[in-house]
Amino acid sequence: MFYIIARFYSFIYIYKIMLGLLKKKPIDKLVEVLGKNKVITSIVERKLYSYDATPIPVERAVPSAVIFPESQEDVQKLVEICYQEEVPIFPRGAGSGLTGGAVPTLEKGVVVSFEKMKKFSVDVDNATVVVEPGVITYELQQYVEKLGLFYPPDPSSFKYSTIGGNIAENAGGPRCLKYGVTREYVLGLTAVIKEGKVLKTGNPVIKDVAGYDITKFFVGSEGTLGLITSATLKLIPKPKARATALVLFERLEDVGKAVTKIMTSGVFPSALEFMDADAIRAVEAHKPVGLPKDVSALLLIEIDGSVEGVKEDLNTVEKLLTSMGLRVQIAQDEAQAEKLWMARKNLGPALANLRTGKINEDIVFPRIYLSEAIPKLREIAKKYDLLMVIFGHIGDGNLHVNLLYDKKNREEEERAERAVDEVFELALRYNGSITGEHGVGLTKRKFLRWQLGDVGIEVMKGIKMVFDPKNLFNPGKLFSEN
Amino acid sequence: MFYIIARFYSFIYIYKIMLGLLKKKPIDKLVEVLGKNKVITSIVERKLYSYDATPIPVERAVPSAVIFPESQEDVQKLVEICYQEEVPIFPRGAGSGLTGGAVPTLEKGVVVSFEKMKKFSVDVDNATVVVEPGVITYELQQYVEKLGLFYPPDPSSFKYSTIGGNIAENAGGPRCLKYGVTREYVLGLTAVIKEGKVLKTGNPVIKDVAGYDITKFFVGSEGTLGLITSATLKLIPKPKARATALVLFERLEDVGKAVTKIMTSGVFPSALEFMDADAIRAVEAHKPVGLPKDVSALLLIEIDGSVEGVKEDLNTVEKLLTSMGLRVQIAQDEAQAEKLWMARKNLGPALANLRTGKINEDIVFPRIYLSEAIPKLREIAKKYDLLMVIFGHIGDGNLHVNLLYDKKNREEEERAERAVDEVFELALRYNGSITGEHGVGLTKRKFLRWQLGDVGIEVMKGIKMVFDPKNLFNPGKLFSEN
Repeated sequence: MFYIIARFYSFIYIYKIMLGLLKKKPIDKLVEVLGKNKVITSIVERKLYSYDATPIPVERAVPSAVIFPESQEDVQKLVEICYQEEVPIFPRGAGSGLTGGAVPTLEKGVVVSFEKMKKFSVDVDNATVVVEPGVITYELQQYVEKLGLFYPPDPSSFKYSTIGGNIAENAGGPRCLKYGVTREYVLGLTAVIKEGKVLKTGNPVIKDVAGYDITKFFVGSEGTLGLITSATLKLIPKPKARATALVLFERLEDVGKAVTKIMTSGVFPSALEFMDADAIRAVEAHKPVGLPKDVSALLLIEIDGSVEGVKEDLNTVEKLLTSMGLRVQIAQDEAQAEKLWMARKNLGPALANLRTGKINEDIVFPRIYLSEAIPKLREIAKKYDLLMVIFGHIGDGNLHVNLLYDKKNREEEERAERAVDEVFELALRYNGSITGEHGVGLTKRKFLRWQLGDVGIEVMKGIKMVFDPKNLFNPGKLFSEN
Repeated sequence: MFYIIARFYSFIYIYKIMLGLLKKKPIDKLVEVLGKNKVITSIVERKLYSYDATPIPVERAVPSAVIFPESQEDVQKLVEICYQEEVPIFPRGAGSGLTGGAVPTLEKGVVVSFEKMKKFSVDVDNATVVVEPGVITYELQQYVEKLGLFYPPDPSSFKYSTIGGNIAENAGGPRCLKYGVTREYVLGLTAVIKEGKVLKTGNPVIKDVAGYDITKFFVGSEGTLGLITSATLKLIPKPKARATALVLFERLEDVGKAVTKIMTSGVFPSALEFMDADAIRAVEAHKPVGLPKDVSALLLIEIDGSVEGVKEDLNTVEKLLTSMGLRVQIAQDEAQAEKLWMARKNLGPALANLRTGKINEDIVFPRIYLSEAIPKLREIAKKYDLLMVIFGHIGDGNLHVNLLYDKKNREEEERAERAVDEVFELALRYNGSITGEHGVGLTKRKFLRWQLGDVGIEVMKGIKMVFDPKNLFNPGKLFSEN
């Protein structure tokens, strides 16, 4: 009798173990397949990876694990398991995004960080480079420039952000005026999509019209279509020379005219950056570089190319602008130029000195409307009684509109959030965009339909379904309704 | 009694008329809604519009009508009717395509020709232009250059091909090495998709990362997603100066080395064109420009930019190449440069003098493999006993491989067709593409899966369904299985 009962219980025990194996938790499965050192479940790690650089509060969850794949095979395996087990996947580059693109929003989800996938190999003769997503943009740039080659995209975060993140967000930067954004440099991709399928797109060639351009479509898709495991990037010849000029404006309305004159003079500047009076004051209060504080605005112009070509172009631009009655100062050497560009790059920290809270929007206006739109932006700031600082890439109409507030003052913070709605509305009224560089992520979801319309959103959702029918890749991003 | 019978018959009569109205033929409906002058059903017109410039025989049908819309509203109405009535739509620009993209393949289908939609309006301050699809590329270029602006894409057909066709095929050309292909210049589109829905994408701004980039995705989709009714194009500053150099090669293997040296010297040529010995001989036999007939190959280099910059760059390139032992000739004036470029542009007609039939393929190799691949292409020609002439945009690895044959010799034509298969195989073996400029259309359908793989084709088909679930936009193109 005892024997029978014992058998019975042992059967149940074995059955339970087998059931347990069959019903193993998704995270255990991931650990089993990838190994413990690639799937981290400590609460410290999980909390750390639930943030990115987004300056305002967003919906956020502590993920159930952080995964650090080391190869395409790892990525394929993890997507297979997550797809079977319906585990949401939140991909992450350096976490330097400003719209919550890398923030996990579901507790049952996992963060996939690519920081261990950072190999790259340059092909000088072909002027291409194959990169893993975790490569830091700046490191790549430094490396290829020594070979006479050039990878232009330069988001402010370029010293720490990764190529994977740059591709996911289609990163821009000042130099994109002349050289184009990240998308223009991505020739091919390997990505893991639904069910762990491997999608290879493009080739290490500049021209390729065989079928729909899935490569470029992936760029800027904010991790919602799949996980990029490698990319082939185009490199171009590194310009031999570079020069910087500073233009000072008494009147804001002259800025637009100056930009048009430059852009139709046969000179193609590599950057045309704008700072308003408050931005200038903020820089001078933070780390003074000797900018005059009595002007309404300034332009920083960068010209690159051959040695003689840069001289000629600088000369053309200087003549053009002085004939408009503007003050032009040309940086006499590398150090002076560097100082001016540091002023521009230090704007972020400079603003942090003014107020504890900052909403940095990156709206875009068609260039022609800038002179008209900037005063209207100021009206919004006045209406909501907020400090607003405007700077940005004026050559492509991409303005960084910064609404500053005191983080401890919840009422002021709310005012800033309401003001942002009007800022977006203004950009759309002028046929612009709610985002030129930062992406939609979590923070701009509700505005996307305003810009794209119902048909646009319908098409986007349809395409998302093709790559990710279970909505497991970065769910909750881009679309406000799921 | 008679009265009752008469009533009965008159009822039937009225019923028949109503039924007839309800069951009106699709073409009659189109005529009714758009008007007789926009819907042409004469057999002459229908036959005329069943061809494009594709040099080899393709599957072809005489369509049931040719429609000439004059506005977006016309396009919307016609798509609505065609979608209701399940009438296939074959969009057409100038019909200058080489892969059958504009050829109707179903008798019940209609050709939609955009030749009456050719308005455009330039915004100089914003450096953008809004164009209707029927605008001829060359006319637009001439117009904007007078304003100090520049629209670079330059397919060989640019003097007669249209912007709509160029967008549908993502047209390239020599200058795309430096300036990028058509896609890089399309900032926004209005398109009519399934059920006559109007899709607006993008904005007249350079940077825009709000949502998936549907704009660029439409470019190169060969009319399979919808009908483009207007596009916003980016214009850039027109370079002030331009110069041309001719480089002569005794040995083919030096060509690749020369290209790498140029592209890592800090000089970014606006074009790098290659002609092999047979191409040179063909030009000299057709319209002599004094090219030496004893060399293995030549390079035509174009450099543009500022006046002094061009001089410096020419000098750099000349020194570099002569130090490699190559002969370099610099065009002394505009007329000499023009003559050299005419030689390159006349290659098409020159080849027509050699044989009556020509298959002109536009495969792409990563630049590094060119020196290796060209002799292998020659082997294919030898194997099939065909005359092969190679020229093309060597800077981006895009080679025009011309297989020449006698049109009356069916056996030779078949040999040429078989040789093409091996040409494509070679390009793919070297990680290249089956098409850099011409698109897939009808003639390259069977090769697309080779290049993209099963997952690639699956994704493409899925996306096609989002825009066109009834498969009515240019059916039979791109995909070999429907």
